[in-house]
Amino acid sequence: MPHWVAVTEWIDLEPDHNWLSEDDLDTIRGRVPMVYVDAVPVRLDELGRVTHIGLLLRAMADGTISRAIVSGRVLWGETLRQALARNLDKDLGPTAFPRIPSSPTPFTIAEYMPDPEMTGYHDPRQHAVSLAFIVPIEGEAAPSQEALDFVWITSEEAAGPGVSAEMTGGQDRIVRIALAFTGRLP
Amino acid sequence: MPHWVAVTEWIDLEPDHNWLSEDDLDTIRGRVPMVYVDAVPVRLDELGRVTHIGLLLRAMADGTISRAIVSGRVLWGETLRQALARNLDKDLGPTAFPRIPSSPTPFTIAEYMPDPEMTGYHDPRQHAVSLAFIVPIEGEAAPSQEALDFVWITSEEAAGPGVSAEMTGGQDRIVRIALAFTGRLP
Amino acid sequence: MPHWVAVTEWIDLEPDHNWLSEDDLDTIRGRVPMVYVDAVPVRLDELGRVTHIGLLLRAMADGTISRAIVSGRVLWGETLRQALARNLDKDLGPTAFPRIPSSPTPFTIAEYMPDPEMTGYHDPRQHAVSLAFIVPIEGEAAPSQEALDFVWITSEEAAGPGVSAEMTGGQDRIVRIALAFTGRLP
Amino acid sequence: MPHWVAVTEWIDLEPDHNWLSEDDLDTIRGRVPMVYVDAVPVRLDELGRVTHIGLLLRAMADGTISRAIVSGRVLWGETLRQALARNLDKDLGPTAFPRIPSSPTPFTIAEYMPDPEMTGYHDPRQHAVSLAFIVPIEGEAAPSQEALDFVWITSEEAAGPGVSAEMTGGQDRIVRIALAFTGRLP
Repeated sequence: MPHWVAVTEWIDLEPDHNWLSEDDLDTIRGRVPMVYVDAVPVRLDELGRVTHIGLLLRAMADGTISRAIVSGRVLWGETLRQALARNLDKDLGPTAFPRIPSSPTPFTIAEYMPDPEMTGYHDPRQHAVSLAFIVPIEGEAAPSQEALDFVWITSEEAAGPGVSAEMTGGQDRIVRIALAFTGRLP
Repeated sequence: MPHWVAVTEWIDLEPDHNWLSEDDLDTIRGRVPMVYVDAVPVRLDELGRVTHIGLLLRAMADGTISRAIVSGRVLWGETLRQALARNLDKDLGPTAFPRIPSSPTPFTIAEYMPDPEMTGYHDPRQHAVSLAFIVPIEGEAAPSQEALDFVWITSEEAAGPGVSAEMTGGQDRIVRIALAFTGRLP
Repeated sequence: MPHWVAVTEWIDLEPDHNWLSEDDLDTIRGRVPMVYVDAVPVRLDELGRVTHIGLLLRAMADGTISRAIVSGRVLWGETLRQALARNLDKDLGPTAFPRIPSSPTPFTIAEYMPDPEMTGYHDPRQHAVSLAFIVPIEGEAAPSQEALDFVWITSEEAAGPGVSAEMTGGQDRIVRIALAFTGRLP
Repeated sequence: MPHWVAVTEWIDLEPDHNWLSEDDLDTIRGRVPMVYVDAVPVRLDELGRVTHIGLLLRAMADGTISRAIVSGRVLWGETLRQALARNLDKDLGPTAFPRIPSSPTPFTIAEYMPDPEMTGYHDPRQHAVSLAFIVPIEGEAAPSQEALDFVWITSEEAAGPGVSAEMTGGQDRIVRIALAFTGRLP
């Protein structure tokens, strides 16, 4: 089997940074870590306590249909705040009215790896470094594109084994860390 | 001069924890550190960026009339969240609609001491350990009780020397740390 | 039963702020929240990952003999850093060589209350607001005074039900939040 | 001027993820944000207070010779902790004995952009999302490869205009945010 092959391709001399073909993206995904943002949607009471966690039902990168938090890539030239707003809008719809946090510091970092043993966070497609934020939702979520469903579960349920069993890639751990960070982990 | 004197006082056998005479409070203030909460009121844009910082004009413990952030004591049996809500309501009025943060972790700790050299935070009355939070304000502040005025200044102004000169006790430093924490320190 | 009784006591006109009789302390404990620091002793590997959590065995305020983290009162005029160093020295001995963190921001706040239902943190003696820090230990702990024993357990064990059952007052939750904050919660 | 040109290149069918040609890296840098880690080297006193900040003197991406903090790319398949350790070793030498922090949460995020106006962080080569950590140095730094020099400056100097004038790309701001986070910003 040859180790090297010659290929000819057309190179755009004036690239639109924000557009990548699936092929280009696949290639890049094998060469450098990708920047992601994760958002844990929450409902707060009037004293700021987390009462509910919002979870999507969606087709995941690993082929399962699972409960999931909002997660997406940061595009070239896009700030983290813009990426958070865009991915929240894409997943929760235009009436969710998310409150993007005032600090750019994530509450945790999830390092998704193709090797599930390495960090406990798993993505078969790529190595992604995801900055995770807690995002209060003030409106009504109406999952638009790829999500099949969206539900609010209580913070007590969110810490339980039932929810863990329905989540993949280590996202149940991100939810538990969010509960710990907000003082709601039992 | 005698070192010890005998005094007789009436002790309440069924104390209301939440009530202290000025005398009792003064005595306790000389014996143990007091628990405080500080709140930096902010306006956020739709991407969560701090655009403005809210400052009270008030009579301070050091006898000056100064610009100040919201600050107050945590009462016995009161949670930090309740203390934040009560002090925000007392200083900014009932139409401010503050968003108490989802995490109990303060962005900094201010250790106010009678000795101004010790930590840079100064309160002539007491040693107070204050947990400082950034609190987005969604409504209109209408300073009620002791405050003489309330203004919104831009985050650029808040980092400048003009504002520092009008604040006392080290609270200008709390504002700068809040700007740093939210990525808005120049 | 009379509601008020007359008592006579001797008042020190030149108080040593740092000294309080047990009686005075008991009285104050019923009137204002006390400032505490909690420290979770940890062992780190060369990449900064928590490998072990250190736990004391001690007589607790609730009358039990339990596993415990380092915890103690902040004295009048003492900075949080001084209080951390003093309490670590008292509990772990002079050869522990704790690394006091560079940031004054605690990883969580534990609000201990006489009412165990209120926050999940319980201290029958008082309302204490405790700032909790993760403290790497570089030397050997040799529990001196009140502690009966000190053991290192793995971070996996620390998250398990066995350890929770041996801890009281909600300190097992502080350990789990510490594991979450350091990315070691399973 | 043609918008598209045909190019022929050799594609490696069994790529070493961790190796990229300068050309490949340049191409990828124009298509996706790169993951970076920044480390602010500090000296701590026995109570954990920052006494000194360590600064490199080096050739920067913008063509200047400037004071700089430790900064470097995260490689494919490398954890953030490994990237921190590797870049600290590369810049400060093998006898620096850096203390990688126990928490994966950065104290701030620097979004370096080719457009210097966008976030205040500037890198003419790329859009890089850098997770910034405070790293106590216990040994002696001996800058090896590209760095020309390494100096310790006091935390007071680090906050001053002299240091800002010698730093580029917004790294002086990262230093000020580090001082704020550790309670050392004047």
